[in-house]
Amino acid sequence: MYFDSAATSFPKPKEVKKAISNFFEQELGSFQRTDTENSDFIYETRRKLSDFFNVESPSSIVFTSNSTESLNIIIQGFLKNGDHVITTATEHNSVIRPLVKVKHEKNIQITWVKCDKYGFVNPDDIISSIKDNTKLVIMNHGSNVTGQVQDVEQVGQRLQKYDGKIKFLVDISQTAGHIKIDNSKIQADFLAFTGHKALLGVPGIGGFYINPKVDLPPFKVGGTGVLSELLEQPKAVPLKYESGTLNSLGVLSLYHSLDYLNSLTTDKIASDLKKKTCYFLDRLSKMENLEIYSLENPLGIISFNIRGIVPSRISHFLSKDLDLQCRTGLLCAPFIHEFIHNNPFGCVRLSMSYETTWEEINVVCEYLKNINEQAESIQNIKFPEIYEMPSIKNMEEYV
Amino acid sequence: MYFDSAATSFPKPKEVKKAISNFFEQELGSFQRTDTENSDFIYETRRKLSDFFNVESPSSIVFTSNSTESLNIIIQGFLKNGDHVITTATEHNSVIRPLVKVKHEKNIQITWVKCDKYGFVNPDDIISSIKDNTKLVIMNHGSNVTGQVQDVEQVGQRLQKYDGKIKFLVDISQTAGHIKIDNSKIQADFLAFTGHKALLGVPGIGGFYINPKVDLPPFKVGGTGVLSELLEQPKAVPLKYESGTLNSLGVLSLYHSLDYLNSLTTDKIASDLKKKTCYFLDRLSKMENLEIYSLENPLGIISFNIRGIVPSRISHFLSKDLDLQCRTGLLCAPFIHEFIHNNPFGCVRLSMSYETTWEEINVVCEYLKNINEQAESIQNIKFPEIYEMPSIKNMEEYV
Repeated sequence: MYFDSAATSFPKPKEVKKAISNFFEQELGSFQRTDTENSDFIYETRRKLSDFFNVESPSSIVFTSNSTESLNIIIQGFLKNGDHVITTATEHNSVIRPLVKVKHEKNIQITWVKCDKYGFVNPDDIISSIKDNTKLVIMNHGSNVTGQVQDVEQVGQRLQKYDGKIKFLVDISQTAGHIKIDNSKIQADFLAFTGHKALLGVPGIGGFYINPKVDLPPFKVGGTGVLSELLEQPKAVPLKYESGTLNSLGVLSLYHSLDYLNSLTTDKIASDLKKKTCYFLDRLSKMENLEIYSLENPLGIISFNIRGIVPSRISHFLSKDLDLQCRTGLLCAPFIHEFIHNNPFGCVRLSMSYETTWEEINVVCEYLKNINEQAESIQNIKFPEIYEMPSIKNMEEYV
Repeated sequence: MYFDSAATSFPKPKEVKKAISNFFEQELGSFQRTDTENSDFIYETRRKLSDFFNVESPSSIVFTSNSTESLNIIIQGFLKNGDHVITTATEHNSVIRPLVKVKHEKNIQITWVKCDKYGFVNPDDIISSIKDNTKLVIMNHGSNVTGQVQDVEQVGQRLQKYDGKIKFLVDISQTAGHIKIDNSKIQADFLAFTGHKALLGVPGIGGFYINPKVDLPPFKVGGTGVLSELLEQPKAVPLKYESGTLNSLGVLSLYHSLDYLNSLTTDKIASDLKKKTCYFLDRLSKMENLEIYSLENPLGIISFNIRGIVPSRISHFLSKDLDLQCRTGLLCAPFIHEFIHNNPFGCVRLSMSYETTWEEINVVCEYLKNINEQAESIQNIKFPEIYEMPSIKNMEEYV
């Protein structure tokens, strides 16, 4: 059973599988070259994404290999000496580590904003952290740990009164494909996405939306297939950020998966996963030894621990007895665990998709009920506490 | 007919096609996580690549999305204020543009070394350019424009007497898979490769070898699936450079294509393409209006112009009449054209693979013979010379 959709979605739509299989029957040149007919599906996928996120122009969609690359291009490129940036305790290491790297290299200030025990960030805390030199707000739209979705619309709208002085970067890795991303409401300057999660594409494709009014230097530079005579990177977006051979297979997967998502609708997906998480949590809440970190959510995420048992042991049982794939630990988001109170071992994360069946959910609930009942008799393996847990209270500034 | 293998190889081995098609039938988690059985093929592919390049350790092979990314990680990461770097006129924009970017940001010196009229760089010119502050030599192993292969073994061996003070970066994008890359002879500290050319993988996968003794900071940082509690990038290679979700489909394609290449052998491929280019050039040499820029080569590249006709017009004819796909222009390598004397329009590049048939070659030769005979009567389209051609003579230092 596959309960790891929040890491990589499975299964992919049949249209995606078919297109990938057929890809190799075509004579394939370098697909991203803008002077060949074959490149059309690249542009078309940009168009589909710009519609999907409700942003103005297809050419404001840049392809990268994943969200991490998108976030690095933006964070390492945008922040300058003297800048202040506000971000949250729910961020993934793909935001934390670039910020820490920039802080080592440049004179920047970072304010880390707390979350509640389910991972919710109060928009007031973001807005009240604004200073004269604040240039960027970075928010994780949905927590990969708890499934909590943030009110980025409220933050985006409240940032409008700063007349574009403060840019807004939203990490939609975990939400895109699960819920409607309407940037006319969020008003983000940057949206960083990945293709292999709920967008139902293959691993190794991602990208970002960039507000055409924002000036951002390129990060990696090189061949662009056109304008070969320029010794510097061409200035036009998306070419500016897309040096080297694209993962055209990845783009093709999105070309087809977006059609599938549009026909199914994200509303239907969100509603389905809310029902499933609600039912799942209701069952878990009756088990006395369970600590639950998720609320009903459209991301399909259920995070918990069974008191006295380290999470990796639970996933071992699930794997051995149910052939179930899930994820445990800190889940690449080290700060949030301080607030949901499961340091230092993190939690078990079961994550579902639209394809997860009620039967599967019942089997897992039944199994966890048994574990819960035997919890006290399960001999736990004591892990040495070998590492010091990071805390935002140790960072220079936190709210 | 496909004569664009130097851009992207086609067809891929049937084992690659089959593996990609089957990929979606498996329950796929995040394959690069080192704690799951599924990740084995990632490690195995590193092992196959380390054998293929004859380098010591599988963990010195880093995956990236393409050569351009590899070259950016190395060039932007390695060069520091005060460093001198030596490179050549045959480089691709994936080397030139990162160097020009670093020069804008840091105080570095670059010496550009000339090539002869077929793109050959004299190793003496590299060695005689060495200064006290030389830290890096960058060489394109094989020219994507002419097919010329450089004597990187000689350069690598002559650099040994500098006791590791000068690192050696070889761009093997165009040669890996075509000829044996034996790093025990080249002694490069970095080998940058891409998967979608002669390594017969899919687009969007590449990587580099790094000498374990070399210290190179990470470029993009973020989630690594393990060691989530560290706020800084883990220091172990390859994790240090591999943040974010890998193109696991791309890695899988290399897993299988390397088996195919090992069973066929690069010696056989190189010998086949030498025969084909030799025959092709022999036929072209009898056509009076042809200017030929290639010598016999194992990369399968034939570059030429027909006097008085701009190259894009030739490819238009070839596409229209023979349904042939090839490439024309500057081919992302702006400096070499000054030395092979085809500025400002570049050339026509026909590039072959082991799968190219003698019948196809004969059809193309026959067709070009006709064009050649009618050359004077073909009305050329006059292109305005809208751009100034770059010249290494305008760079600060050239040899």
